[in-house]
Amino acid sequence: MRSRLLDAASALFRVHGLAGTSIGAIAAAADAFPSQITYYFRTKEALFVEAACRDALRLAERAEKAAARARTPAAYVRALVDGIMRGDGLAPFVEALTLARRRPDLAPQIARTIERLHVEGARAYAGEMARRGWLTRRPADLSARRFWAIALGIALEGQATGRSAAEMSAAMREALGEMASAEPAGATAPPLRLVAASAPPSAKPA
Amino acid sequence: MRSRLLDAASALFRVHGLAGTSIGAIAAAADAFPSQITYYFRTKEALFVEAACRDALRLAERAEKAAARARTPAAYVRALVDGIMRGDGLAPFVEALTLARRRPDLAPQIARTIERLHVEGARAYAGEMARRGWLTRRPADLSARRFWAIALGIALEGQATGRSAAEMSAAMREALGEMASAEPAGATAPPLRLVAASAPPSAKPA
Repeated sequence: MRSRLLDAASALFRVHGLAGTSIGAIAAAADAFPSQITYYFRTKEALFVEAACRDALRLAERAEKAAARARTPAAYVRALVDGIMRGDGLAPFVEALTLARRRPDLAPQIARTIERLHVEGARAYAGEMARRGWLTRRPADLSARRFWAIALGIALEGQATGRSAAEMSAAMREALGEMASAEPAGATAPPLRLVAASAPPSAKPA
Repeated sequence: MRSRLLDAASALFRVHGLAGTSIGAIAAAADAFPSQITYYFRTKEALFVEAACRDALRLAERAEKAAARARTPAAYVRALVDGIMRGDGLAPFVEALTLARRRPDLAPQIARTIERLHVEGARAYAGEMARRGWLTRRPADLSARRFWAIALGIALEGQATGRSAAEMSAAMREALGEMASAEPAGATAPPLRLVAASAPPSAKPA
């Protein structure tokens, strides 16, 4: 029942958001009584956070599985990033993180989920690099923390401004830069350059 | 009056959040009538987004001014990042970005603000690098986009898990890595390394 409630809640929250979804609607979708929701989760907000955390961990796991089939470091990063950004999948987790700022009772579950994303991400990354003999630019734990900070920032910006999943994926890959290389010779860091005072940034002025 | 309403709203939203602040309370704090708020801003949400966007731009400007006094590239990045993370200053902007996902009418102002943060950030960064003759790892516009994606991700994670401003600043500097160098010899990119399959990530397992 607990898992059925989470599945029903997750589907409704994804479409209607936290404010637009009632306990009654979740109960109806799961063929349950509203009292069963309060029995298992106490509040709608706690159910929302639990569903968002569970979905974020599943999203990460699926993305890692898809990336494991990639043949080059660039394809690996692309598969990982595409998987994370697919179908606005991080949006509920971003909303849960914002919610937790005003609801300290919900923060521990968020903190545990971020820790798991970091630890499991680092383990998967280190495993893949070792298995293929690829060279990595940073220790695996730093790579994972950096990956998730950029993912959350890009998802937050992108969903606020109506970007597509493909646009968010491109922006995230740009921000990540090269993470790993198949061979030392191909592993050039971005070159250091002098900036001319007169050179305008290539973005258009607002 | 418009500016006085924004100041009063900004102070109240910062303490009580969007949901915990009423139009009546903002009017009282600004010595105004509630009808003046709806006249200038139409809704509380629109006022919230405008105040959050204005404050984010000011926060960025102040951080750039503080960073301009730094004597080394590392001190420059530290001053910039400390300034952005100070006093949970990005929190209302993060909440505004989350809100805009369900309120497309508020998205254009958010998009314009992100664009201004990128363009003005790139201009300030390029100007500082050129003035000092420092070498930079990436073009200024990419540096600015990357800086803000990481800042928003770290702020979102940090405020959800109750991190201090100092902890968020350290996490952001770790994710940024080296942005610039005073001299080519000191400008080493993170070395490429092989990961041993048995090497555990240094983070503790959950």
